[in-house]
Amino acid sequence: MSAAPRWDPDFTPYVVNAMGPKTPPRAREILGCLIRHIHDFAREVELTPAEWMMGVEFINSIGAISTPIRNEGHRICDVIGLESLVDEIANKIVTEQGLSPTSNVILGPFWSPNAPFRALGDSIIQNPLPNGQVTYMHGVIKDMETGAPVVNAVLDIWQASANALYDFQDPEQTENNLRGKFRTNEKGEYYWYCYHPTAYSLPTDGPAGVLLNVMDRSPMRPAHIHLMITHPDYATIINQLYPSTDPHLDIDSVFAVKDDLVVEFKPKTDDPKATLDLEYNVTMALKKHHPNPNSAPPVSSFERSQKSKSSL
Amino acid sequence: MSAAPRWDPDFTPYVVNAMGPKTPPRAREILGCLIRHIHDFAREVELTPAEWMMGVEFINSIGAISTPIRNEGHRICDVIGLESLVDEIANKIVTEQGLSPTSNVILGPFWSPNAPFRALGDSIIQNPLPNGQVTYMHGVIKDMETGAPVVNAVLDIWQASANALYDFQDPEQTENNLRGKFRTNEKGEYYWYCYHPTAYSLPTDGPAGVLLNVMDRSPMRPAHIHLMITHPDYATIINQLYPSTDPHLDIDSVFAVKDDLVVEFKPKTDDPKATLDLEYNVTMALKKHHPNPNSAPPVSSFERSQKSKSSL
Repeated sequence: MSAAPRWDPDFTPYVVNAMGPKTPPRAREILGCLIRHIHDFAREVELTPAEWMMGVEFINSIGAISTPIRNEGHRICDVIGLESLVDEIANKIVTEQGLSPTSNVILGPFWSPNAPFRALGDSIIQNPLPNGQVTYMHGVIKDMETGAPVVNAVLDIWQASANALYDFQDPEQTENNLRGKFRTNEKGEYYWYCYHPTAYSLPTDGPAGVLLNVMDRSPMRPAHIHLMITHPDYATIINQLYPSTDPHLDIDSVFAVKDDLVVEFKPKTDDPKATLDLEYNVTMALKKHHPNPNSAPPVSSFERSQKSKSSL
Repeated sequence: MSAAPRWDPDFTPYVVNAMGPKTPPRAREILGCLIRHIHDFAREVELTPAEWMMGVEFINSIGAISTPIRNEGHRICDVIGLESLVDEIANKIVTEQGLSPTSNVILGPFWSPNAPFRALGDSIIQNPLPNGQVTYMHGVIKDMETGAPVVNAVLDIWQASANALYDFQDPEQTENNLRGKFRTNEKGEYYWYCYHPTAYSLPTDGPAGVLLNVMDRSPMRPAHIHLMITHPDYATIINQLYPSTDPHLDIDSVFAVKDDLVVEFKPKTDDPKATLDLEYNVTMALKKHHPNPNSAPPVSSFERSQKSKSSL
């Protein structure tokens, strides 16, 4: 849609072209496109001065509540689907033959670079909770094209505990509780003990809560287990695995559910250490298939060090 | 432009349609349009995760530096032309006969509701500065259609002093220095003494400075005199008047220059109280011609009370 003719058609080009010759080309491309879209948005909805000023105050409120351990700007982007979209743009793989590996989704703010390596068959549960449902999780990592096992892939798992809190957020949890790195064996297999995941709400005491409330949306995320799967030859895969029984699958507040990441937890009766069984198999694509083979995952610099900060 | 086909065409509608039934209709319209434009922007420039995270940190930095007396979100909007655009959408008047009154521009953050009424012929200069160039300013307010004088119009003038600071910003200035309200006489005339205006820079110690620097743009505003002209029967006009000799007319950092607001200061030799003469005439449109007859000017709640705050 274009502006109604009563508005100056030269205004937006004038603003965009005000950028000087020293503007880096990529900044010119990004900022020019962003300014055009913001102007088009204002004209399309005929944004009023009062509505604009509400938006100004909303933007100011995002940074006002953010801290080194709370990134509300990141959360607002999640709530409007932007992080999921940026992830898709950066990481979606479709070969010329139409092949895609297991879906990638957003990393979220709770990944840690410090998770310890553990041995296959170990448990990541350092601090058991009475209501935690121990799950034997296992599967095989295969090459998307050949079906060959991917040996020595590293699976980095992290999850909230049965109280819906990550170790960062909970003074009762020891560091790296419910975190761990595992290497696949010569058959491409992995197996460990973890918890059935627990659903939780985004924090609603800030602008994200205001926005979700205006949009009449739930702040809940479906329960999920995070995985990051890496291998020198293969494109990294970031996963969130959702129990098929979770009631929030269709209303994920950050739009990170994909069909192939919805999994079935089954009763397990042959193992005194677990009551549930989860089989989850992954296919990986060689790095050459990735649209940005050298791109790094979008690791937020924030919300990873709450524990260490709060213990100062 | 639409997304490349490798990206899910259903994603953006899914995010927009996540809004629940209790979303107010206008919020649904505004937020739906904004989300669509932000998504289209990300796809068009293929925004990378690293670029997105830079944007997140930039948004957070806006609110982090804002205070009750500094509204950086407002300033960022000015730098991308959004306040000027919102003003145009709200206030531009063109009749069916193609008539327009004197142009409206943005209010800016330094208007005060507390300017005192003064008598025609008075000076608004309470605290003279040696380099201030006293100007005899005068003119006539007329009806856009009939040319009849507009009697009892209120002209509210405010301006920075010769040191480029407003009374709010300068402990050496008394309250309402270089502010005043005047009523037109029975001929629609007004006249007073003020200063030739002085150019100044936006504050560059925050995100607006970062953004202007990336865009290789000047932070300067051309020198200007603010006017707000009100009358019960006529659409309010907000003006900024710019000396035609100002070197920043084409690079105003907030895009608020309009051709009919560029004025000529002339030498004045017949008045011991002034060295310059400024004639500025205005045409006003009846309220019925305004697209939003009951709209109020976009008065920021911030940056108007610095003086009272800082004197606590």
